[in-house]
Amino acid sequence: MEKLTIGESAESRKTISESDVYLFAGITGDFNPMHVDAEYARESRFGARVAHGPLTFALAAGLVGMQLPGVGTIAVTNTVHFRKPVYFGDTIATRGEVTGLDAERNRVTISLTWHNQHGELVAEGEAIVVPPPSAADWWSHH
Amino acid sequence: MEKLTIGESAESRKTISESDVYLFAGITGDFNPMHVDAEYARESRFGARVAHGPLTFALAAGLVGMQLPGVGTIAVTNTVHFRKPVYFGDTIATRGEVTGLDAERNRVTISLTWHNQHGELVAEGEAIVVPPPSAADWWSHH
Amino acid sequence: MEKLTIGESAESRKTISESDVYLFAGITGDFNPMHVDAEYARESRFGARVAHGPLTFALAAGLVGMQLPGVGTIAVTNTVHFRKPVYFGDTIATRGEVTGLDAERNRVTISLTWHNQHGELVAEGEAIVVPPPSAADWWSHH
Amino acid sequence: MEKLTIGESAESRKTISESDVYLFAGITGDFNPMHVDAEYARESRFGARVAHGPLTFALAAGLVGMQLPGVGTIAVTNTVHFRKPVYFGDTIATRGEVTGLDAERNRVTISLTWHNQHGELVAEGEAIVVPPPSAADWWSHH
Repeated sequence: MEKLTIGESAESRKTISESDVYLFAGITGDFNPMHVDAEYARESRFGARVAHGPLTFALAAGLVGMQLPGVGTIAVTNTVHFRKPVYFGDTIATRGEVTGLDAERNRVTISLTWHNQHGELVAEGEAIVVPPPSAADWWSHH
Repeated sequence: MEKLTIGESAESRKTISESDVYLFAGITGDFNPMHVDAEYARESRFGARVAHGPLTFALAAGLVGMQLPGVGTIAVTNTVHFRKPVYFGDTIATRGEVTGLDAERNRVTISLTWHNQHGELVAEGEAIVVPPPSAADWWSHH
Repeated sequence: MEKLTIGESAESRKTISESDVYLFAGITGDFNPMHVDAEYARESRFGARVAHGPLTFALAAGLVGMQLPGVGTIAVTNTVHFRKPVYFGDTIATRGEVTGLDAERNRVTISLTWHNQHGELVAEGEAIVVPPPSAADWWSHH
Repeated sequence: MEKLTIGESAESRKTISESDVYLFAGITGDFNPMHVDAEYARESRFGARVAHGPLTFALAAGLVGMQLPGVGTIAVTNTVHFRKPVYFGDTIATRGEVTGLDAERNRVTISLTWHNQHGELVAEGEAIVVPPPSAADWWSHH
């Protein structure tokens, strides 16, 4: 945990494709017409099919699990607030920043934001994780 | 909103396959060895590859978006606490129950639980959503 | 091997979709922004997202393994030179031609080319394979 | 290019799943029964379905394009020799090592090996690439 410092950050970007959303629908069983029915979506307020909120959220999984804090991290609690729809073709920048270090409980708080290519905040949230060095110890105590 | 009542619930189940996890890795970019490296996972505390936490969480998307409250629902806030690992082949029962109705702010709170086939709680959480009838109105006020 | 003759050829074509590239990223773990970040790619020299080179190359696998020489073929050595980027939506014609027959070592050389819909050579290469009739014998000698 | 040194290396690992092979078949059109027909494969010399050779090869794409030399790398030439079959469930360690630096032609040679979980060499090869710093210049001269 000594390597992590408050303010440390990491970012990744991905353009959300139609196939991402369709596969996500297949994995989760969420075939809400908002995601897979172009006609329905066209007449809705959003005007077009949008990605599943949890798909946007899940982009943080790679960031947290592979970069910050990285391999060996165990997720404890996640929170996400959705602010704007994510459309097919949007390029989402997922950013994580260490905002809390609790050595006693061995937990790290990472603030998360997701912005689209227009710089709009589409979601924001937080991940509380057990960082890698002590990952092996944590689960058995829980 | 008159149709929703406190205590109303819905449930769905799915057996998590290796392909679910592998596709999820491809969508999110999370190639953490815990998910895709059987040798690494075997020597870890979990003893085998596990599903991504957000995949388990995302199973609720279908439940909320298609059943409770159903088509037209807009997710506002999600929270999830991970309690146990989900292994390939586990059958996860995702359950949602209405625990809060805020007519003034037009929001519904749904408590979420995820259990595996052994009856163990693998995750629990909460979704705050705008229910369908007023979905069209909500976004513009936000 | 008597069926194969120098100059014999086969061809197949496929339009490369966004989902092909996205799934390929998921299988291989190659999330290079050139493939999955439209904003990054737009500002790069290529001007748009491009397919993974090995995806183009892999189109030859079907040609060799199913047509020339066909089912039972065992790949020994592959070489590929990349000449031009392959964009999403490009239709790639993969062509193979028998250019060498080594009866003693039981190997066939197939020259490979990949052209896009504009007739531009995007890649060229070579496959050295053990043809079907003797596939069963070969591996044990190796 | 000054950052790269002879002997520098990187490695990644992945367990090859049935879904990896099936999706790869769908992308490439290679439905050779060796990959997708369990009955045929059972009676063949290999005894079970095996992964496509180019799939194994493609694991290097992520290593080269994201780690060594990393983002911005342009593939020029790839060569691969297949030594042993890769079965579903095998965990493949892909390793790259810088073995050549040609400053004048701005090219880097990376030796590649693929080993399974038993330590057996399943494939070996080489990638000649243009490293990131000069990626923008190269294509136009070619």
